[in-house]
Amino acid sequence: MTPSKPQLPVGNALIGQSGGPTAVINQSLVGVVEGLRGHKNVKKVLGAVHALRGIVDGKFIELNKIGRPRLERLAQTPSAALGSSRDKPNAEYCRRIFDQLNRHNIRYFFYIGGNDSSDTCRIVSEMAKLDGYALHCFHVPKTIDNDLMCNDHTPGFASAAKFVAQAFMGDNLENAALPGIKINIIMGRHAGFLTAASVLARQNKSEGPHLIYVPEVPFSVEGFLGDVERVYKQHGRCLIAVSEGIHDSEGTPIITKLADAIERDSHGNVQLSGTGALGDYLSAAIKGHMGKDARVRADTFGYLQRCFAGCVSPVDAKEARQVGREAARHALLGVTEGSIAIERVSSKPYKVRYRLINVREVAAKTRTLPPEFIVNGNNISESYRGYLSPLVGKLPVIETIR
Amino acid sequence: MTPSKPQLPVGNALIGQSGGPTAVINQSLVGVVEGLRGHKNVKKVLGAVHALRGIVDGKFIELNKIGRPRLERLAQTPSAALGSSRDKPNAEYCRRIFDQLNRHNIRYFFYIGGNDSSDTCRIVSEMAKLDGYALHCFHVPKTIDNDLMCNDHTPGFASAAKFVAQAFMGDNLENAALPGIKINIIMGRHAGFLTAASVLARQNKSEGPHLIYVPEVPFSVEGFLGDVERVYKQHGRCLIAVSEGIHDSEGTPIITKLADAIERDSHGNVQLSGTGALGDYLSAAIKGHMGKDARVRADTFGYLQRCFAGCVSPVDAKEARQVGREAARHALLGVTEGSIAIERVSSKPYKVRYRLINVREVAAKTRTLPPEFIVNGNNISESYRGYLSPLVGKLPVIETIR
Repeated sequence: MTPSKPQLPVGNALIGQSGGPTAVINQSLVGVVEGLRGHKNVKKVLGAVHALRGIVDGKFIELNKIGRPRLERLAQTPSAALGSSRDKPNAEYCRRIFDQLNRHNIRYFFYIGGNDSSDTCRIVSEMAKLDGYALHCFHVPKTIDNDLMCNDHTPGFASAAKFVAQAFMGDNLENAALPGIKINIIMGRHAGFLTAASVLARQNKSEGPHLIYVPEVPFSVEGFLGDVERVYKQHGRCLIAVSEGIHDSEGTPIITKLADAIERDSHGNVQLSGTGALGDYLSAAIKGHMGKDARVRADTFGYLQRCFAGCVSPVDAKEARQVGREAARHALLGVTEGSIAIERVSSKPYKVRYRLINVREVAAKTRTLPPEFIVNGNNISESYRGYLSPLVGKLPVIETIR
Repeated sequence: MTPSKPQLPVGNALIGQSGGPTAVINQSLVGVVEGLRGHKNVKKVLGAVHALRGIVDGKFIELNKIGRPRLERLAQTPSAALGSSRDKPNAEYCRRIFDQLNRHNIRYFFYIGGNDSSDTCRIVSEMAKLDGYALHCFHVPKTIDNDLMCNDHTPGFASAAKFVAQAFMGDNLENAALPGIKINIIMGRHAGFLTAASVLARQNKSEGPHLIYVPEVPFSVEGFLGDVERVYKQHGRCLIAVSEGIHDSEGTPIITKLADAIERDSHGNVQLSGTGALGDYLSAAIKGHMGKDARVRADTFGYLQRCFAGCVSPVDAKEARQVGREAARHALLGVTEGSIAIERVSSKPYKVRYRLINVREVAAKTRTLPPEFIVNGNNISESYRGYLSPLVGKLPVIETIR
C-alpha cells in the first residue's frame, strides 16, 4: 500500500470526532495533531466542530495554534473536544463533505470514530479518487463497544470497562451488605464486551456478578427469572449484569416490549440508553415472579460509563494517543487511505503493535463477543479476565471479613 | 460529661454498621478498632454481622484478631464490611439488643450510621442506664446525605459528592459534544447536599449543570418545563441535576405521581432509588412540552454514587477514620454516651476539629441544605463550592477548545 516514492500533497489537514464520546477520544485527537506537527506539506491542522456538520458548515478550529501544555490537558479531558455528531451521511451528504474538503484544500483527513465513521471515511476516500483529488484519508478507531473488526480491542473500551468493573466492585459489596436482587444495565447494542467487563469485579465464585447477559445470546424472560431464583436461593442475594441490547430469539430488543414510544436515531437504531425502562421492566418481572419479600433494585449505568472524569485506563490513554500518531505517520509516509488496528502481540507481558489496515475491513461491520467467553448463555468465563485485565490495569483494593 | 475519676467497666466491645453503605464506612470501623486496641479493660472487639440483626442473632466477628495490613485494606474497601441492615428497632427490638449486649458482656458499643442509627444508640443507652448496666454507648456518624445536625459535614458525603462531581464533569462534556437535554437523578430524600455537589462540575456560567433541583424547594413540573425551555433556547443544550426526593408543594414526592406500585421500606419511606422512573417521567414531560426535535435523556445515578470503588475523597477517608478513633477515645476516657461531630475550624487552610456531642442532638433529626446555597429555587450558588471543595479535594483536569 505504500508507494516507493510517495508524492505528498501540500495543503491542510482536517480532523473530526464522531459518534459517542469516550474518556480517551481526545488522546487520539492530540495524537494526530502531534503526528502532523512540523511537516512541511501540512499547513493548517483544522478540527471540524461537531464532525460532519462542522465540515459541511465550514466550522473549524485551528488545532496547530494550540500550545503543548494545553493540548496535553485536552488529551486528558473526556468526551469529544471538537464536538460530535450522529449524522448518518448518505451519498449526497458525502458529496457536500468532499466539496468542503476541496474548497479548504484539505489533503489529509482523519476521522476518529467507530464502524459507521470508518464507512464515511471509505466513501469520502472513494469520491476523492474518482475526482482525481489527492486526499490522504484515515479512520482512527474509537468505540467503548469494542466492536471493530481486525482489532484486538478499541480505544475507549478499556476505560469504560474500568468504570463497569469499579461500579460492580462497589455494588457487589453493597449487595452483600444489604442483600437482595440487583440488576445493572450496561451499554452495548450488539456486542457484550462492556457488559462482560463486570466479571472483573468478581472476587470468587460466590461473589457477584452472579449472572451476566449479553446481546450475543437470545434472551428469554422465563429463563432469566429461573436463573435469578436459583442464584437467590443459593446465595441469598443476586447481582446481575445485563446488556441494554438484549433481544429475544427473533431479534426484537427486550426494551421494545415495554417502551410506550420507541425513539429511533438517524441510523434507525432504537433508543436504548438514557432511560431506566429496561431495568425497571426486569425488576418488575422479578417482583412478579418472586413476590414482595425480595428486595429488587435496578440501576442503568447510562452515559456515566463512557465519559466519567477520572476513570481512565492508562493503557487505553496511551493506545488512543498512539493510534492517532500512527494514522498521521502513515498519511505522511504517502499512504492514501487506511485505518489503524490494534493487534495484541502478547498478554504476559502485555504488548501490542499497530497495524495499517484497509478501511473496508472495519467499515460498517460489527465484531461481537467470541462464543468461548460466554458460559451457559448467562455468564462470562474467567478466560475473559485474562483478555481484559491487561487493558484495564490495576483496580482498587478489596478486602472482606465475612 | 467526663467524670474526673472514671470507672471503666471491663468487658467486650461491639461495633455495628447501619443503613446505606458508603465508600468510607470501613474507615470508621477500623478507626474504632484502632482506638480500642490494647486497652486492658477491653477484651474482645466484636463486629455485629448485619448490624442489629447480627446482635439479636448473636452473629459476631472477632475484629481484634485481624492483622493490621488486612485491616488497612479493609478500611480502603467500600461498603459495610460487617453487613448492614435497614431494620427499624422498636422498644421491644431494642430490649432484645440490650439483652444480647448483657449476655455477651458488651461494655462498649459503637454504632456507625445516620440519624436513625443514632436514635437506636440513644434508646439502648437509656435502657442500660435504667437497668444499672455499665455500657459506654457511642454513635459514629456516617451518611452520604450529609443530613446530621451539629455536623459541618458527615463521613461518606464527600466521596459521594466526588462521584457526583466527576460524573457531571464528564456528562457536561458529553452534553456539549452531542447537544440535547440531559437529566441526572441523584440520591437525597430530604436533603439536597449531594445533588448540589453537581455544581463542582460547572466550569463557567454557560456550562452545565444549568439547573439544579433539590428537595428543599417544592417542585413544580410546569416551572421545570419553563426553566428547561429557557436554558435550551439560550445554550442549545441543558444539563439538569435533580434530587430523587423532589416533591410538590404539598410534600408528595414527584415519583409517586407515576409509579404503579409504590414500595415502602420498614421506615415507611417510599422507594426512590433503584428505579429509573423519576428520570423517565421528567424526560417524557420535556418531550411532551418541547416536541420530538429535542434529544432528551435521563440517567439515574442510583447506588453507584455511594460505593463506587476507587472514587474516594482523601479528606473523607481520613475523617471517617478519625471519628471512629474519637468515639473509642472518649469511651475509654470514661464517657458513657455520645456522638462525634465534625466541626470546621477554617476552610483556608481546611481544618476541622472533632467534638463530643450528646447523641440526642443528632438522633432522628434531619439537617437540610441551608437556604443561602439555593438560588432562584432552581440552582446552587458558587458559595456552595467554597463549602464543598475542601472536602472533595482535587478533581480531574478539564480543558476545552470550543
